[in-house]
Amino acid sequence: MGHLAMKNPSIKTVAVIGTGVIGRSWIQVFARAGCTVRVFDSDPEMMTAAMAWFREDLKSLRARKAIKTREAKTRWDRVTEAESLAAALKGAGYVQESGPERLDVKQAMYRELDRHAPAKAILGSSTSAMDMTAIAEGLPGARRCIVAHPVNPPHVVPAVEILGGTATDKRVVARTIKFMTEIGQTPILMKRFVGGFVLNRMQAALVREAVDLVASGVCDVRAVDDAIRDGLGLRWALMGPFGVANTNADNGIREYFTKYGPAYQGIWASLNTAVQFNDDLIERLGRETDPMMNATLAAQRQWRDRLVLGIRELKAATPLAAKRKKQR
Amino acid sequence: MGHLAMKNPSIKTVAVIGTGVIGRSWIQVFARAGCTVRVFDSDPEMMTAAMAWFREDLKSLRARKAIKTREAKTRWDRVTEAESLAAALKGAGYVQESGPERLDVKQAMYRELDRHAPAKAILGSSTSAMDMTAIAEGLPGARRCIVAHPVNPPHVVPAVEILGGTATDKRVVARTIKFMTEIGQTPILMKRFVGGFVLNRMQAALVREAVDLVASGVCDVRAVDDAIRDGLGLRWALMGPFGVANTNADNGIREYFTKYGPAYQGIWASLNTAVQFNDDLIERLGRETDPMMNATLAAQRQWRDRLVLGIRELKAATPLAAKRKKQR
Repeated sequence: MGHLAMKNPSIKTVAVIGTGVIGRSWIQVFARAGCTVRVFDSDPEMMTAAMAWFREDLKSLRARKAIKTREAKTRWDRVTEAESLAAALKGAGYVQESGPERLDVKQAMYRELDRHAPAKAILGSSTSAMDMTAIAEGLPGARRCIVAHPVNPPHVVPAVEILGGTATDKRVVARTIKFMTEIGQTPILMKRFVGGFVLNRMQAALVREAVDLVASGVCDVRAVDDAIRDGLGLRWALMGPFGVANTNADNGIREYFTKYGPAYQGIWASLNTAVQFNDDLIERLGRETDPMMNATLAAQRQWRDRLVLGIRELKAATPLAAKRKKQR
Repeated sequence: MGHLAMKNPSIKTVAVIGTGVIGRSWIQVFARAGCTVRVFDSDPEMMTAAMAWFREDLKSLRARKAIKTREAKTRWDRVTEAESLAAALKGAGYVQESGPERLDVKQAMYRELDRHAPAKAILGSSTSAMDMTAIAEGLPGARRCIVAHPVNPPHVVPAVEILGGTATDKRVVARTIKFMTEIGQTPILMKRFVGGFVLNRMQAALVREAVDLVASGVCDVRAVDDAIRDGLGLRWALMGPFGVANTNADNGIREYFTKYGPAYQGIWASLNTAVQFNDDLIERLGRETDPMMNATLAAQRQWRDRLVLGIRELKAATPLAAKRKKQR
């Protein structure tokens, strides 16, 4: 992890509220960055399971020499279970809420967070779908409430979508972006709410075509996945669609879209907008995916996490920007 | 390159016809795999430039110790310029055509290829858009003609879309897939023609939403590209959309699409189908992309190629399948 870009965080104490798959991963993000982390879940079994996962993850990192014993122990000691929500929030400068995705539940949770958290604390939510304007409606501290939606799992994949509600203070947005950058995440600033946010909208656009290619008999699941992992995905691990466009024409992105714009529009006009999931289609996708993912789900996830971190280290060790400095 | 999966190719002699950016990259693919490569372009300057590029690429690989001096020399010696199309095709078992993307030009080229190539040679085309049924219409050797469309550049990104025309022999399809696998490429078998093929259709679907997110003011170009390269792209370098779906629910892909299907369909219904390029939009995308790609275009491409090969070696050194074998 030595190569991943992290700075001393400007916020030292963090509360992780809600400890499902996303919440527990946030524990590792904050502990890795050097924060004191207080964890709370209203379900004690969830909290116990999350702490067990965090400690197993530390052991696994140590076993494969990704971190030293001292570092594992330091991280372990930074994280404590809180006996109550109020105890978890005491002294916190940043709160990461990862509770159930129901508006009434989120609103009730935010009333509690706003009541018990220190006045300066930022109240961030992992919600993947809700608008902070709705969650924080009528809340005295609406100005400090913000969406910070990660990609699963955030201790592996760094992108975090950042979006305030209409009442959110611009300085809260700026401080959240600063903090996320300091702890090694990549903030994706949204300027306004849109259903699915940025990342899931782009994923959904691609998934629709992927599903349609299989459903309409153009190719099978393996061909689609091979085309991504041994094709588009290799470039997209390094550059987004605009970076790719910029490198794929000798005079850059303007030439690329001028030259290939008509071809894009031709494909766009032919995309099937009537794709629908049903049980038969889902079962077919499942049957074709099973032999391709030839390991247990746990092994698949371990492999994914390890290789994603490997790619991030490779990218961090060979930044594009460094080349420019040498050229100057 | 030691980790990339390659076998002794079952086809020993290859003709590379057409030497633009794609054609010259194919030279390196075949030379790396151990084939004897004959190169021809009707424009002698193009051919000279392609040979210069190939030799520079060998020097660069040697300079950063990616290959040994002996290997560089062996590859250099495997590739020769041909004085005529007929000379290039003599003894060839596989032909990779990368000429201009115009149907009449391709048809004329295929008449020549079919006339001069040995009876057993497969005639593959790098076309990104055309149907082999149309290119090979009325050709005596239509049965041996096939689309083998690479991703740019094929010596770096291995995916190759494979599709015969209606007259193409199934054994030619099977032999092409076998040969592509042997030389380290990843064949993507298409069962029928569709505009844009598999890979560019999925790219176009994502690009439309990426452009719309910027055009509609949801976020800027950097946010879109960060969301891909530090989010979706990190997973897509390892797994396609179906593999990602499979790892993102505790009970796999069936649970994932059953649970999130309605959310996907909600986003699908909201995707803007009226996105259109125009000069102002392209200029805006260009202006926002310029500061992000902070190096010369040549440096960007070198960085991309080097890191993509690094990711491929990382993946080859840590395959998911190996874990399953250990578990058995």
